[in-house]
Amino acid sequence: MIPTPYLLFLGDAPDALAAKVAQGIKDWRPENAVGQFRLPGCGADVGLNDLTLQEAWDAGARTLVIGVANRGGVIAQSWKDVLVQALEMGFDLASGLHNLLKDEPDLVAAAEASGRTLHDVRVPSVAYPIANGVKRGGKRCLAVGTDCSVGKMYTGLAMDAEMRKRGMKSTFRPTGQTGILITGGGVPLDAVVADFMAGAVEYLTPDNDSDHWDHIEGQGSLFHVSYSGVTMALIHGGQPDALVLCHEPTRKHMRGLPDYDLPSLEMLRDTALQMARVANPDCQVVGISVNTQHLSEDEANSYLGEVEARMGLPAVDPFRHGGARLVDALEAV
Amino acid sequence: MIPTPYLLFLGDAPDALAAKVAQGIKDWRPENAVGQFRLPGCGADVGLNDLTLQEAWDAGARTLVIGVANRGGVIAQSWKDVLVQALEMGFDLASGLHNLLKDEPDLVAAAEASGRTLHDVRVPSVAYPIANGVKRGGKRCLAVGTDCSVGKMYTGLAMDAEMRKRGMKSTFRPTGQTGILITGGGVPLDAVVADFMAGAVEYLTPDNDSDHWDHIEGQGSLFHVSYSGVTMALIHGGQPDALVLCHEPTRKHMRGLPDYDLPSLEMLRDTALQMARVANPDCQVVGISVNTQHLSEDEANSYLGEVEARMGLPAVDPFRHGGARLVDALEAV
Repeated sequence: MIPTPYLLFLGDAPDALAAKVAQGIKDWRPENAVGQFRLPGCGADVGLNDLTLQEAWDAGARTLVIGVANRGGVIAQSWKDVLVQALEMGFDLASGLHNLLKDEPDLVAAAEASGRTLHDVRVPSVAYPIANGVKRGGKRCLAVGTDCSVGKMYTGLAMDAEMRKRGMKSTFRPTGQTGILITGGGVPLDAVVADFMAGAVEYLTPDNDSDHWDHIEGQGSLFHVSYSGVTMALIHGGQPDALVLCHEPTRKHMRGLPDYDLPSLEMLRDTALQMARVANPDCQVVGISVNTQHLSEDEANSYLGEVEARMGLPAVDPFRHGGARLVDALEAV
Repeated sequence: MIPTPYLLFLGDAPDALAAKVAQGIKDWRPENAVGQFRLPGCGADVGLNDLTLQEAWDAGARTLVIGVANRGGVIAQSWKDVLVQALEMGFDLASGLHNLLKDEPDLVAAAEASGRTLHDVRVPSVAYPIANGVKRGGKRCLAVGTDCSVGKMYTGLAMDAEMRKRGMKSTFRPTGQTGILITGGGVPLDAVVADFMAGAVEYLTPDNDSDHWDHIEGQGSLFHVSYSGVTMALIHGGQPDALVLCHEPTRKHMRGLPDYDLPSLEMLRDTALQMARVANPDCQVVGISVNTQHLSEDEANSYLGEVEARMGLPAVDPFRHGGARLVDALEAV
């Protein structure tokens, strides 16, 4: 786990999109973020106080999180003075960039000198076991998508937030670097060695109280030929009791694969449910989460109504309408 | 690629089973094996001439292959004199053991001194790409199983051997360490990082002549929760034109998973075909390969007849009957 709370480093992010990791932390775990740190020329602002390293330390921050994605995922030389100074003051550093903190000799030296830790959340830090398939206590919900990048992480976070609001036992279980930075822990599943993928998901979602829900962050799609193996490991390692189908209705083809059409929601439902029932015969599809960001309010409502009638399941955009109806559906499981 | 031909090192293998990698090389690529090397007390014999290192070198051998699986996959201290001497004489070393040649300082030192290479075939040596899903020329056949260890490698090797006998263009494409040692190259798929699994399979089975067949070694099973992600990557990365269903009829439960029943051949057919058609809409199931080693000849023939009638597909045990009828079915594709 990464020590919380954080100071969010926005660096010289040119715009809000470049700081979406920091924005995600602020949106979903505001209690984890005491402030933001911006360099001259920074065009992003996640709406937190601008703090110096000392002010953040005094406010309790113990990790400086790199909340900005550079072009190429590189650690910029212009960030180095601040990063080294933070280590010297006693902060850990955390990053989800491709380029690793551990590959920067000056950061490694500063961390060793001060006894601090560099958290590269793209790199697995645990020797995960091979999955054993043993049935675990507690309940698990997995978001599966017709494609990559259709809102699976957002859906899980929204359902988790709604359950916490209702006083239910709930944990969001991240499987990608943004989710790991938001919550402070998780499994970077796409970087795990093939034999251990399903075991890593079992490790991430252990035995729990019978009324506790894990919301497992989905990855890829069973219908995306580049990443379907990762999705399959989530379905079998996660033993989900409930699946939520995620879809983006304006997508013209599978992401990055111009020759591949998206499957229908019915195909996703039938295929994912059949595979999920190998690991959990009681698994059910409980609802549909649609990313309607490219539709107007009227278009979105009309599309959701059509899908809901066709599929006989609640269909919502959790960004527009929250996760309440999906959680209602889970409570009925 | 590992330089061929080989001298097969059987070490102090207690019995034939412990030398099954060497036996596989001798059975499937006898032209790759000029002889065997045994230590005192060796209880295995793959039926090749016992050669000294010098005799093997003079016969053309350029790699000493560790063809024995120790308990625990360890490189024994008692092997070291021979292994170091082989490196000094100019042999490469190749091994599929868990314990790596590269982790033995004395072997590393000897290899560096003589400019030789240590081939640990369990470890990927290539930076595989992310799969792009682009349709490739040539034809591909993939063996998929109701479970792990039901004869998928054997099936692919038998079909490849039959095609070569007929003068057809055919290549066996190994995805596990035994297959890699047999042919001298391949992808150790279970050791590849998740994001690159399907890309590694694309890399392994490149564009080819329209009348060339790749026989892709299957791994795991869509129905085995520990390894299904690896199987899925084979199905989507391999873009198979043909699937062969593999089954072992006396299995009581999924291998290593006492609470999991085997799927029926019908379930495997329908599920694997649906997933394969995402990457190749023309994919067909062409036949069934049954491992009947635990059945008598009469029981085997009766079982195969029943399956063939039920499924409407040729059902054979390639070990008992060869791969001819499966290749006939491929020729009809």
